[in-house]
Amino acid sequence: MAEQEAPVTAREWHLAARPQGWPVPTDFALVEAPVRAPEPGEILVRNAYLSVDPYMRGRMNDVKSYVPPFQLGRPMDGGAVGYVVASAAEGFAPGDAVLHGLGWREYATVAAGRAVKVDPSVPLSAYLGVLGMTGLTAYAGLLEVGGLKEGDKVFVSGAAGAVGSMVGQIAKLKGAALVVGSAGSAEKVDKLVGEYGFDAAFNYKDGPVAEQLAEAAPEGIDLYFDNVGGEHLEAAIGALGVHGRAVLCGAIAQYNDTSAPAAPRNLAMAIGKRLRLEGMLVGDHGALQPQFVAEVGGWLREGRLRNEETVVDGFENTAQAFLDLLRGANTGKMVVRLAG
Amino acid sequence: MAEQEAPVTAREWHLAARPQGWPVPTDFALVEAPVRAPEPGEILVRNAYLSVDPYMRGRMNDVKSYVPPFQLGRPMDGGAVGYVVASAAEGFAPGDAVLHGLGWREYATVAAGRAVKVDPSVPLSAYLGVLGMTGLTAYAGLLEVGGLKEGDKVFVSGAAGAVGSMVGQIAKLKGAALVVGSAGSAEKVDKLVGEYGFDAAFNYKDGPVAEQLAEAAPEGIDLYFDNVGGEHLEAAIGALGVHGRAVLCGAIAQYNDTSAPAAPRNLAMAIGKRLRLEGMLVGDHGALQPQFVAEVGGWLREGRLRNEETVVDGFENTAQAFLDLLRGANTGKMVVRLAG
Repeated sequence: MAEQEAPVTAREWHLAARPQGWPVPTDFALVEAPVRAPEPGEILVRNAYLSVDPYMRGRMNDVKSYVPPFQLGRPMDGGAVGYVVASAAEGFAPGDAVLHGLGWREYATVAAGRAVKVDPSVPLSAYLGVLGMTGLTAYAGLLEVGGLKEGDKVFVSGAAGAVGSMVGQIAKLKGAALVVGSAGSAEKVDKLVGEYGFDAAFNYKDGPVAEQLAEAAPEGIDLYFDNVGGEHLEAAIGALGVHGRAVLCGAIAQYNDTSAPAAPRNLAMAIGKRLRLEGMLVGDHGALQPQFVAEVGGWLREGRLRNEETVVDGFENTAQAFLDLLRGANTGKMVVRLAG
Repeated sequence: MAEQEAPVTAREWHLAARPQGWPVPTDFALVEAPVRAPEPGEILVRNAYLSVDPYMRGRMNDVKSYVPPFQLGRPMDGGAVGYVVASAAEGFAPGDAVLHGLGWREYATVAAGRAVKVDPSVPLSAYLGVLGMTGLTAYAGLLEVGGLKEGDKVFVSGAAGAVGSMVGQIAKLKGAALVVGSAGSAEKVDKLVGEYGFDAAFNYKDGPVAEQLAEAAPEGIDLYFDNVGGEHLEAAIGALGVHGRAVLCGAIAQYNDTSAPAAPRNLAMAIGKRLRLEGMLVGDHGALQPQFVAEVGGWLREGRLRNEETVVDGFENTAQAFLDLLRGANTGKMVVRLAG
């Protein structure tokens, strides 16, 4: 077995309690645990970057969903990139950079079939964001689910987030006539228009979403990319024109709700307007991966696509980073960088 | 100009007031008005059957929609079939049976381009229902919008109504594995199972829709045909499986609401399940008409499709028939038969 130096124990984050409503720091526990040497077919990875994502909030609940819930007293998981330090699997050698699903820990023993080698000439964190799951979510959601057409008027909520910032930029690159974004601070709004090329943006905390959207898109919209749910979705249903489309990708506004949301209350408008609302998970769109990497990778190299990240330093700050993410502290993809 | 005898004046129904919430009889006025002789390109029709439909409730509001609102103090309109009594248009002769859009009146002067000759060997009322707009709505909604596949488990609300009773029967004829319907009385429920061939049915007034649906379809559903909205739609979203589809065709539960409906409160489930919800209007599906007439007409001739109608006699009862329709007094298509 080829190997580099690895510690005997390392830290991992466990789910300590299931939150009611907003999670709090005591729902997470930082635990020192043995580093297990790889068995045949496995590799040991020193993680370099961890992903924190809004969907993880759902996994903290004990609810059957499209991903299994986190288990109490067990390590959490999620996207991660790192370097192989020991390999008992063909095709992997120490020093290889890999993308895998056992985040929330410093060292991960991973089945080789669940790890993908990545090109280390690209900053590794990109594989968690712009070239990874969030990038493909934006790309597939906009093109495959939303059926973006040249000339479309597009609205995206959570527009300064990892997915939303990609959606807006890809829409412009693909010929959208108008791209409007909403975000939760004046700084983010400025950035959307000033740096990301959105045609208009507004701070949803400044007033009713429907009113601000009507101002930004007085002729209405053709396509809505929903990361937020609730009032945003209701406003979008109102603004969508005949045969409009809504991509339901996230509902961060209600992930911490303890009661059922009241909005959207205007869903019956979907009849007369013949709207199509469609939920999506990126896992259904793997076939688009090569086209995605080629096109988005090209835009990145040409400098036509901005890839902003919010990088939090220190493994011990992972839980707090996730809590901050849920409150919108990030612009673009949020990752945790481990000391290396 | 070829003609038969026509009276100098005849009766028509006008919109007298715009309802707030549930309409009342005084919102309608029965008016005696001159019968206008046809000008070149027009025909004069003695109506034999008038259609009353739930969508007409929306037209009583002064709201821009996919059909223009009824005008105060003016005759209402809607589907009608009758006989030409005078023709100033090529291709139409007295005695021809025609389908047209100027209902709510005894005699209608119609532009020939807006009338379609129909085969009088079929009972004329069929052109307002099973072979008309409601039939095509069921057929196109189920097949084109809903993408019905053999083996699908299907739920339809308003299942004893004009559209719903067709949806359930067509689903069975097309190989659905399970067809569940909801209706508003024990008699209707009995009829759905005993006469229309539904696998299961329930009275939504007997208890929570979600619970009754879970009992009738314990493995969930693949396709929901929504005529009702509100609690029904919420229950269906909960019961739909991964990649489930909902056809949004009507929302009669809320047509008379004066406040915004709270349901569905679980729309975010559409993300994880990758549901597709799509609104429809029959007007988009005219291209399916020949296939529809051939297939549904065939089923009718073979006695494989039941076509029940609720026939109200007497033009003077049209407004009351419409009010009764909104409260679910009909089974199958409701039409008004004029004395002839």
